[in-house]
Amino acid sequence: MAVQHREREAAPRILDLPIGLEASGTRTESDSIGEIQVPADHYWGAQTQRSLIHFDIGDDRMPKAVYHAYGFIKKAAAIVNGRAGRLPRWKADLISRVADEVIGGDLNSEFPLYVWQTGSGTQSNMNVNEVISNRALQLIGGRLGSKDPVHPNDHVNMGQSSNDTFVTAMHIAAVQAIDSRLLPSLKRLRDATADKSREWEHVVKIGRTHLEDATPLTVGQEWSGYLAQLQDATDHLEHTLTGLYRLAIGGTAVGTGLNAPPGFGDEVAGEIADLTGQPFVSAPNKFAAQASCDALVRVSAAVRTLAVSLFKFANDMRWLGSGPRTGLHELILPSNEPGSSIMPGKVNPTQAEAMLMVAIQVVGNDSAVSMAGAEGNFELNAFRPVIINNVLHSVRILSDVMDHFRIYLIEGARLDTTRLKDDVDRSIMMVTALSPVIGYDKASRIAHRALDEDLTLKEAALKSGVSQALYDKVVDPERLTQPGVAVSGDGAEH
Amino acid sequence: MAVQHREREAAPRILDLPIGLEASGTRTESDSIGEIQVPADHYWGAQTQRSLIHFDIGDDRMPKAVYHAYGFIKKAAAIVNGRAGRLPRWKADLISRVADEVIGGDLNSEFPLYVWQTGSGTQSNMNVNEVISNRALQLIGGRLGSKDPVHPNDHVNMGQSSNDTFVTAMHIAAVQAIDSRLLPSLKRLRDATADKSREWEHVVKIGRTHLEDATPLTVGQEWSGYLAQLQDATDHLEHTLTGLYRLAIGGTAVGTGLNAPPGFGDEVAGEIADLTGQPFVSAPNKFAAQASCDALVRVSAAVRTLAVSLFKFANDMRWLGSGPRTGLHELILPSNEPGSSIMPGKVNPTQAEAMLMVAIQVVGNDSAVSMAGAEGNFELNAFRPVIINNVLHSVRILSDVMDHFRIYLIEGARLDTTRLKDDVDRSIMMVTALSPVIGYDKASRIAHRALDEDLTLKEAALKSGVSQALYDKVVDPERLTQPGVAVSGDGAEH
Amino acid sequence: MAVQHREREAAPRILDLPIGLEASGTRTESDSIGEIQVPADHYWGAQTQRSLIHFDIGDDRMPKAVYHAYGFIKKAAAIVNGRAGRLPRWKADLISRVADEVIGGDLNSEFPLYVWQTGSGTQSNMNVNEVISNRALQLIGGRLGSKDPVHPNDHVNMGQSSNDTFVTAMHIAAVQAIDSRLLPSLKRLRDATADKSREWEHVVKIGRTHLEDATPLTVGQEWSGYLAQLQDATDHLEHTLTGLYRLAIGGTAVGTGLNAPPGFGDEVAGEIADLTGQPFVSAPNKFAAQASCDALVRVSAAVRTLAVSLFKFANDMRWLGSGPRTGLHELILPSNEPGSSIMPGKVNPTQAEAMLMVAIQVVGNDSAVSMAGAEGNFELNAFRPVIINNVLHSVRILSDVMDHFRIYLIEGARLDTTRLKDDVDRSIMMVTALSPVIGYDKASRIAHRALDEDLTLKEAALKSGVSQALYDKVVDPERLTQPGVAVSGDGAEH
Amino acid sequence: MAVQHREREAAPRILDLPIGLEASGTRTESDSIGEIQVPADHYWGAQTQRSLIHFDIGDDRMPKAVYHAYGFIKKAAAIVNGRAGRLPRWKADLISRVADEVIGGDLNSEFPLYVWQTGSGTQSNMNVNEVISNRALQLIGGRLGSKDPVHPNDHVNMGQSSNDTFVTAMHIAAVQAIDSRLLPSLKRLRDATADKSREWEHVVKIGRTHLEDATPLTVGQEWSGYLAQLQDATDHLEHTLTGLYRLAIGGTAVGTGLNAPPGFGDEVAGEIADLTGQPFVSAPNKFAAQASCDALVRVSAAVRTLAVSLFKFANDMRWLGSGPRTGLHELILPSNEPGSSIMPGKVNPTQAEAMLMVAIQVVGNDSAVSMAGAEGNFELNAFRPVIINNVLHSVRILSDVMDHFRIYLIEGARLDTTRLKDDVDRSIMMVTALSPVIGYDKASRIAHRALDEDLTLKEAALKSGVSQALYDKVVDPERLTQPGVAVSGDGAEH
Repeated sequence: MAVQHREREAAPRILDLPIGLEASGTRTESDSIGEIQVPADHYWGAQTQRSLIHFDIGDDRMPKAVYHAYGFIKKAAAIVNGRAGRLPRWKADLISRVADEVIGGDLNSEFPLYVWQTGSGTQSNMNVNEVISNRALQLIGGRLGSKDPVHPNDHVNMGQSSNDTFVTAMHIAAVQAIDSRLLPSLKRLRDATADKSREWEHVVKIGRTHLEDATPLTVGQEWSGYLAQLQDATDHLEHTLTGLYRLAIGGTAVGTGLNAPPGFGDEVAGEIADLTGQPFVSAPNKFAAQASCDALVRVSAAVRTLAVSLFKFANDMRWLGSGPRTGLHELILPSNEPGSSIMPGKVNPTQAEAMLMVAIQVVGNDSAVSMAGAEGNFELNAFRPVIINNVLHSVRILSDVMDHFRIYLIEGARLDTTRLKDDVDRSIMMVTALSPVIGYDKASRIAHRALDEDLTLKEAALKSGVSQALYDKVVDPERLTQPGVAVSGDGAEH
Repeated sequence: MAVQHREREAAPRILDLPIGLEASGTRTESDSIGEIQVPADHYWGAQTQRSLIHFDIGDDRMPKAVYHAYGFIKKAAAIVNGRAGRLPRWKADLISRVADEVIGGDLNSEFPLYVWQTGSGTQSNMNVNEVISNRALQLIGGRLGSKDPVHPNDHVNMGQSSNDTFVTAMHIAAVQAIDSRLLPSLKRLRDATADKSREWEHVVKIGRTHLEDATPLTVGQEWSGYLAQLQDATDHLEHTLTGLYRLAIGGTAVGTGLNAPPGFGDEVAGEIADLTGQPFVSAPNKFAAQASCDALVRVSAAVRTLAVSLFKFANDMRWLGSGPRTGLHELILPSNEPGSSIMPGKVNPTQAEAMLMVAIQVVGNDSAVSMAGAEGNFELNAFRPVIINNVLHSVRILSDVMDHFRIYLIEGARLDTTRLKDDVDRSIMMVTALSPVIGYDKASRIAHRALDEDLTLKEAALKSGVSQALYDKVVDPERLTQPGVAVSGDGAEH
Repeated sequence: MAVQHREREAAPRILDLPIGLEASGTRTESDSIGEIQVPADHYWGAQTQRSLIHFDIGDDRMPKAVYHAYGFIKKAAAIVNGRAGRLPRWKADLISRVADEVIGGDLNSEFPLYVWQTGSGTQSNMNVNEVISNRALQLIGGRLGSKDPVHPNDHVNMGQSSNDTFVTAMHIAAVQAIDSRLLPSLKRLRDATADKSREWEHVVKIGRTHLEDATPLTVGQEWSGYLAQLQDATDHLEHTLTGLYRLAIGGTAVGTGLNAPPGFGDEVAGEIADLTGQPFVSAPNKFAAQASCDALVRVSAAVRTLAVSLFKFANDMRWLGSGPRTGLHELILPSNEPGSSIMPGKVNPTQAEAMLMVAIQVVGNDSAVSMAGAEGNFELNAFRPVIINNVLHSVRILSDVMDHFRIYLIEGARLDTTRLKDDVDRSIMMVTALSPVIGYDKASRIAHRALDEDLTLKEAALKSGVSQALYDKVVDPERLTQPGVAVSGDGAEH
Repeated sequence: MAVQHREREAAPRILDLPIGLEASGTRTESDSIGEIQVPADHYWGAQTQRSLIHFDIGDDRMPKAVYHAYGFIKKAAAIVNGRAGRLPRWKADLISRVADEVIGGDLNSEFPLYVWQTGSGTQSNMNVNEVISNRALQLIGGRLGSKDPVHPNDHVNMGQSSNDTFVTAMHIAAVQAIDSRLLPSLKRLRDATADKSREWEHVVKIGRTHLEDATPLTVGQEWSGYLAQLQDATDHLEHTLTGLYRLAIGGTAVGTGLNAPPGFGDEVAGEIADLTGQPFVSAPNKFAAQASCDALVRVSAAVRTLAVSLFKFANDMRWLGSGPRTGLHELILPSNEPGSSIMPGKVNPTQAEAMLMVAIQVVGNDSAVSMAGAEGNFELNAFRPVIINNVLHSVRILSDVMDHFRIYLIEGARLDTTRLKDDVDRSIMMVTALSPVIGYDKASRIAHRALDEDLTLKEAALKSGVSQALYDKVVDPERLTQPGVAVSGDGAEH
């Protein structure tokens, strides 16, 4: 049989040719549909070209990260196939070498396909197969488009299907994006938040619940809340990565592993783990791994929940910075740029707005991921491109905006300490501390009196019969921010 | 001071009175706004009554599970306050006793408030405080509405705020619903799925990708995919519960713990853990715990992702059962009821439809939870009722529908083995197994020939020069479902 | 043939029996699946009972409004069938009479089915058919469950299918709910908003963009924006109703109208229009009308967009009312109830919070409707119950909350005129008015100077060389709120 | 005063310079924050450069269509200002001329800003102002960055604010995209669908409800349903455009029109209408127009509902084309490309999948738009960039995918008439036609008998006592697809 025969041919010499095709016009490529002209200065083949024509939809291109991830898969498969003798060693090495070019991004311009293509990602897989085949042929002086002796399907795709590899590439790309961009960016923001929390540990402010004046806390305590939210988000994201470590590779067409040798999935996953430094393993159940995208739906949800936390953080920032004369203005946000084309001197909380908008986009993206994740049928979820594009989009913009938000808003934020002190002095809700001593009902009457008669709390309390000594003892703003102090002080004395 | 004084009074006798007020007309209750008439046959007080009037919106009532959870909080707080001497022992015991009635659901009719109320849940907290106060007063022969000697704020709510307790109640209610309903129901469905997967382990069928004929697998393998999805969902849900185990209790108004004694949160959380048998602890950061609902947003996402998995499962079921004459009809679903008011004899996949609709509702509910989770400001997320109502709604309907789907569809599903075999016999995609032997391109030509000339795959292969011996060796449907067998067989021989 | 024969029997005497069955235990009913016991004190039959058992999922019951709508359909169909002689006149009259009881809500307790049932709504249609059949039999002294001489399918459902009638009932129920509840409630809120806009037409305040101080406007102008949003929402909602006026009735099983006589759809739609007073017509294309729920998806979107507008309105209300001492506090919101269980004297913007939560729920509900609307297949969208339940839920809670928001927040809102005036006096952004006169760049320097040196705008302007005469002429807050005044004044003079 | 003085200077000579700056390195530009270096070969100024640095977030750039729309605004404003003498005629003409270059896309490379920027769009407005200013300066031999004699704020932005112009640009861009791309693409698809509906007007098929065999209809009837959905979507989209025709222009900073002369909004809107050929008018209420994005939220919803309709259409296509051997296979979809990297000869419904994925993205985008639309505060919705980017994205991909779906799937679809006929012959649900004649219960027994004994419907009917004459008269598939025929035939005869 022809295929097997070819495997025994002698190794050709590998030419040291840089990437690039010195040709113009078109070249004939073919697939099972027939022949088609492709641009002669590109490596891609017939199926890529057909996809370019049939799916020229919008501007959304399959993210390059997916192709880089595919580089790892093709390299790992070649190594495993070569080691087992299914591919001649030279051919395995050659595919590996070109795969390294894919991984490194050197062939990025050869991957032009759109997100809106076949739902399995087959066209992107074939794009990779074709490019590696033709680049390999170039490197051994072969004829581009001949598929011989490095065939896109028989050799580059050996033991693989789009159905297992594309979702494998999705997992690899998502893990790398989260590990190299999202988590570092998140941790930097968390650390900057921790710095502020420490810096302002003892600055007392009036808390707000329902937007209304409440009891005091320190600015540092308030920021410790943001910090805790970010830490929880970090932990949760890291946990959801475990689902992504399980790769479908080895399942081939429908999960049974047809045309893949025994242990192929395990071996390839092991190689990918070595190449990427990430703890990838072969998914324990390939049918679920190919028919669903549940692991990515979970990751998308975790990213969305991070966005939800960041929405609150950024929203607080812009409100606390509002003013300068008619807003809350506890915070003075950095003036990064003029805020208005018509109002001179205006400064706006633009980094917070960018964060809020990104968070909203992430929520919308997650909504698309969720719907797409539900739509699998039988042995395949054919909504993969929309899933990975949204997940990577969310990861990308959230990573970037967290850095910008940190650098251009958080790190430069200062307190308007005058305003903070004024607010503490004018607040009424410290009456709460009196409540365990004089009872809720009486305390309530004092608060209402302060408001109605435009008094300070102290004035109202003293007018209502509270002794100055008791008042000063109980209503000490700084002490009131320290958990447990208030009541235990009372208990001892009246 | 009056409050402290009361604590020293002698314990009254507890009357053995059943729940119920033998009164008609109205009773005067009061709060800081003033007096108001409440129905004399109900225990609730002024604030509950005001909420009933001001928030008579739709039919959505705060779920009873929230009140049962509140019963645990009030009991635990009373125990802790009593032990520390902040409450006289008899008062602590009395509150505990009534709290047990709350927990047991015996006072359900006293909790009539709507979901659409104050965003902190204060009105529901006060509802509990008022009911416990008045029921306690009844039990000691006191006057309802007098708040003396068991005051709703000073005693039932001692050391607490709505801001920490309501979200604590949300966590307790969600954990209990998930632990007692969702997870058991999910596990039963998972086990029934496992049974089917085992039962049909060796029944070969034609796989489908993109809805199109693909290579064979066994029915058992296909179902192992559903099983794996359900198992992953179980694991993930159990993980997200860890966030819910952290209770805000002890943070009081803004997270500082004002008016709560030192250690109060830890002690109350410990009591709640003992009472519920769940590993609840005091949240490490109360500011985050009260200002966000992140833990519930994560749980909602996990429940949603389960719904996404179930959508795929149910969708497959109805498609595999479609027909009987013009559909796929691999599965014969139980005929539970007539399917049509006009078409006699029609049977529909109604359980699958119910599952799909519930899954969609859960996705919509999660979308509300996510938006509400983002909207916290400063020291409080004031969108709590909409969050807990949606989470509990999702948990409830998903739990129930999983049981019904299991009992009335999964357990009774049978295979149409004739149809399965016919499909295997007529399928062409087993040509894939020939591909590693004769090459992808030649294999592709055989497949197209079969289709064009309306041949079986075997006929087309033999006409195209494949030997019968090779064909029979390579294209054995059952062997093709066994991972790794096909290629290793080839590799050895041609 | 039996069916035809029966039609000729003489009219029985109609007994004057009130609704209600004096029986206990169970009664045997049957359908094509076989016999089943139903509670003897209920009118429903076998299919209702099976549904109750098979779909006992959660607490969500099919809204009663759907059954009331069905009453109109059954009555209209009986009238049309009777008029054409397909039903004996007495039978048509009898069905009509019972249908009136359905319409009036007198048989509400006979419609116990869940939302989560068959996706076509068949079980609810059969519930109606069975109840009308048995109630009719009761009224003529027949035997319940005998189906003779009033058969649920052959007579009550004559010329109909669930596939056309259920979506017809959905349209009727939605139109009635929107027309009788949502639009009136919206218009009342709109009018109350108009009143406030007029009342505060001349009160100057400082505008805010990006939450930051901007140029002045009047409170009345600000409220005219809310008013315009509400008016636009009204217009849009009314427009989308046009899609709902088109009823699927007459399409029967798959849209062809099989088993319905010519013109049946037109005639029944005409009767329904007469009975309801709404401009219902027969849908021009029954295939679309039954296979999609597009008209309801559009209505859901319109309701959602109203919720989006209300979110902004309510959010502004709570922010403008924030304080009293550390917030914006331009508005004084009514104190409807105590705001806190721990903080005495606290008042919160609870009506705004309820509105915000309802709006979020409506957005989530719409998300479910949208997904369900996409999932039709071939001749039927089998996700109808989840669609109508969400639409009616949204309509209900939004209607109610608009009334409460109006009565308990909008109508009682007052201005803190002291605060408003202080803000105007302290604001800097009126520098904008100087910009066309002295140039943006110089104006900007004045603004920054005011901030940096803590000056009023006037102080900074004068220190920067602006004459007092020019300042006073240009920077007049009230004049600045009147469109076009500022520049034209300038243009004439320097 | 400097500003006024400049207006009187003599008109400089306009040089005939092509677009492009022959410079390298950087150029100093300035704004109220200070000086900054910008690339010397670009026209943009300081504020653009700051935005590039501060908002380098992801790859999402503000859509060029927004800038083209801005070109119309700047041109129209210059015309109006020039006509009124507020701008010297030469300056108005010069701004107009450069605005034409913006409109034509010739300056596209000068608009590099990101979506994630200030929520008002100010930075994109200033980008336009700066580019027009500098290009104008180039054309009169001035010094770039000097702002003299064409100042970005004082002249290009004269009478305008970002707050009114950016949302105006959003409306213009959305109207143009919908009018020039979405509606034409939708109408082409609608017409292609109409062609198919006519072509297959008389081909009988078995309908499916709940995916289960139902009564017959013609293929043309089925497609008339898709057609009607598309027509309704067209009508609805066109209606929602009316909201977009209302432009905020003239409201300036907060809606009062400060710094804009009387009638400015009306005049500029009129010019824009003339320039674009669209019926734009000045919004009747500027406060709503700037503080909300309701009109765009409505348009987004209309686009989403179109996506919902298309989801159903595409889903039906892939199911009807499923097979070829084990699916429904009523339709033969065009084979555009090989379907699998591993399964030779496989053809997949890839155009349908692309459509489904695009539809899901549009639903997700709309979800972001809805949330962003709700988040306005006071005088500004500061979430505009995320809104317009999502709306234009949805419009773009939906326009494109409708064309591809039409060309590569719909137009080339053929019927598998053998399969259609087989299905009709084997179907049982035509028993429905017997139901009015012999009664639902007996008809039901016949259907069940056919299934249980594996008979054709006719065999089962005859065995059950129906006469051959009656059967042949009533059960004629083609006649059954014609509304109203069946019953009227019956009524006359038995």
